[in-house]
Amino acid sequence: MTKIVLKSVFFNNQVLDVLIVGDRYQKIGHLTSEDMDKAHVVDCSNLGLLPGFYNGHCHSAMTLFRGLADDIPLKKWLEEYIWPREKLLTPKDVYLGSRLAILEMIKSGTVFFSDMYWHREATAKAVEEMGVRCALGVTLADKLQDSIATQNSLKFLREHQLESPLISLAVMPHSVYTVSEKLFRESVQIAKEEGYILHTHLSETIEEVNSVKKERGLTPVDLMEKWGALGENFVAAHCVHFTESDMQKFRESGSYAILNLCSNFKLSSGIPPIGEFIKGKVKLGLGTDGASSNNSLDLRETMKFVSLLAKVKEGAVFLPAKDTLDMATKNVAEAYGIKGGVIEEGYLADGILVDLNHPALNPYHNLWSNWVYGSGNGSIKHVICNGKFIMENGHVEGEEEIVEEVKTLLFNR
Amino acid sequence: MTKIVLKSVFFNNQVLDVLIVGDRYQKIGHLTSEDMDKAHVVDCSNLGLLPGFYNGHCHSAMTLFRGLADDIPLKKWLEEYIWPREKLLTPKDVYLGSRLAILEMIKSGTVFFSDMYWHREATAKAVEEMGVRCALGVTLADKLQDSIATQNSLKFLREHQLESPLISLAVMPHSVYTVSEKLFRESVQIAKEEGYILHTHLSETIEEVNSVKKERGLTPVDLMEKWGALGENFVAAHCVHFTESDMQKFRESGSYAILNLCSNFKLSSGIPPIGEFIKGKVKLGLGTDGASSNNSLDLRETMKFVSLLAKVKEGAVFLPAKDTLDMATKNVAEAYGIKGGVIEEGYLADGILVDLNHPALNPYHNLWSNWVYGSGNGSIKHVICNGKFIMENGHVEGEEEIVEEVKTLLFNR
Repeated sequence: MTKIVLKSVFFNNQVLDVLIVGDRYQKIGHLTSEDMDKAHVVDCSNLGLLPGFYNGHCHSAMTLFRGLADDIPLKKWLEEYIWPREKLLTPKDVYLGSRLAILEMIKSGTVFFSDMYWHREATAKAVEEMGVRCALGVTLADKLQDSIATQNSLKFLREHQLESPLISLAVMPHSVYTVSEKLFRESVQIAKEEGYILHTHLSETIEEVNSVKKERGLTPVDLMEKWGALGENFVAAHCVHFTESDMQKFRESGSYAILNLCSNFKLSSGIPPIGEFIKGKVKLGLGTDGASSNNSLDLRETMKFVSLLAKVKEGAVFLPAKDTLDMATKNVAEAYGIKGGVIEEGYLADGILVDLNHPALNPYHNLWSNWVYGSGNGSIKHVICNGKFIMENGHVEGEEEIVEEVKTLLFNR
Repeated sequence: MTKIVLKSVFFNNQVLDVLIVGDRYQKIGHLTSEDMDKAHVVDCSNLGLLPGFYNGHCHSAMTLFRGLADDIPLKKWLEEYIWPREKLLTPKDVYLGSRLAILEMIKSGTVFFSDMYWHREATAKAVEEMGVRCALGVTLADKLQDSIATQNSLKFLREHQLESPLISLAVMPHSVYTVSEKLFRESVQIAKEEGYILHTHLSETIEEVNSVKKERGLTPVDLMEKWGALGENFVAAHCVHFTESDMQKFRESGSYAILNLCSNFKLSSGIPPIGEFIKGKVKLGLGTDGASSNNSLDLRETMKFVSLLAKVKEGAVFLPAKDTLDMATKNVAEAYGIKGGVIEEGYLADGILVDLNHPALNPYHNLWSNWVYGSGNGSIKHVICNGKFIMENGHVEGEEEIVEEVKTLLFNR
């Protein structure tokens, strides 16, 4: 197995050495000559080690629509701009859009993303080629798709296709308004029987909540409970319009909420009750959502945003930097059942190495808070995922080609 | 006079040429051979031109305290961490702290900042050396300082010391709670007589507002009106707790409000009524505040933040990208009486050149919105201020030394 030593790296306020063997952190601290034997030694003087970021909710290929139609109302945005173009997307387009998204994520320190989209094989190819981790959605939406597509997806899940050390499939019924009760219940069942994570959009807009209430007299969370979805394998995106009882159900069932603040604010969907979530001990992670509604896949930005929003309501002491960082690393890893997001012996070897001489990180009285509240993402020098360097000296293999290909794709239409 | 041609630059959705003569934009569009004669031609293929950013409120040397004491209550932060250290600051410290701040600002595209701090000669030296613009505060706070310092400051203003093409002095009484009525009224008078901008902290916390109300039965804005401060040369920072009547007074007098959202949120000071300000047609600009309360001097981050906060309350269509960009460019330039912040013939030649191949700016359906909502500040390649390149290919002259010196300073104490 490959051995890598991160020599003299700044971690947890000390300078020390880190041994990676294969895909895991094996030892952190003082290394023996035996540890060092046949290892590839990387000099990390003046570099700080942080966990790689885990993006809890994304539609990666939607980078293709970034900036296409900002500052217009949601309905018009969907009906006149996004949906007509999504219908035309080929697997090649999705492959290129996913590659562009993964490139942007790696450059901003993200090593994992949860992806809910179409043409999953195309995204899987991009993931494997670029070496990041992905909870790859088998997206279900029988109100939008024909029954052959749905049957194909279910078969796909039963056969555990496409799984790899980097890719874990996840069952992703799109939402309560695009999936029938029958198919949603079937999704829940498959997830339980086959051991999958179940991921959906939940209580994103007040229109969604009101429509479920009107039709069934329930909140979307009540409906999830009724359909058997809640539990430790349930990961819901958005969770903007939660009642106290919704929160209690999430806490008691061990379900996870992934907040996508930039998207919720930009589309004017609402402000999730962050303080209440935290005080109510609901398990929380962060996501960027797709680049057509954010328009950024940079999780550092979302970290700062969530912390500031919590503080302005709850006080300056609330949600400190380290807890915020956890929401974009270990909490999301845990939600998706991955032993990562933490730099500890035995955990998956993901991480980023930041240049401690970057002006925005200086002086580094406190690297956690300079990271979360500062603006140091230009400081990321190397990115490690699964024990491999996937960015070196700020460069990702093939990045120029990715951008060129995306341009060609768009300009030729 | 020096002539520079930005050849084949992407600006306002077209590729064109831009002629800079001396410190001004002279011609934008098709250039003749006469225009090109003896010009230094810079190939700007695949670069986009945006205005340089104007930071409406900062305490630059407070970069020295970045990350020193985050996530603790305001009172403790000031009394136990900031004030004891500020008392020890030497002019050399302020010079280094200002240099670090200017470096961070240049790297994130900022070419102007308003600075309220101590040891102004030290900041002036840093400004001139690094080639940015500054509204340099003559800070007044007779409740914190001795009378000799105050008299010295007033003399300084009467003699127009330190002014230069890059530096304009501004009268900066610190706040209504640190400046006596007598000195505040004197500041107002000097500003009017000598043609200075008057800048102060205003209605930042609810405690400030309540204390003025209790003592005088007025809001801080009423007090400014009574003391004759309101008017087109009045620029107030924060403006978090404004009443409808406060807004009306600002609008009618032509006073400017500079919002510093990241700082207000992080310190839990409150949420300024952005929607009301905009609908009420109050003149608005953006600032970062100091790096000890933000902790970032990156204005792009504040642009996104203000736009998202406005949208979540007022709707997705509200405060579009271009208007947001104006709040961090032309509005602040106008507030401080500088003919800049706009790329137009006759205006001061400030600007940033961004790499259009940067992943976060692609595809560039719309450069304004990809800039404001995206996370492309790693895309800034060159920065121009006053007709000179102050950053080339991502590098600012002397940047390594600045960071080294700051570290030495801190580690030696």
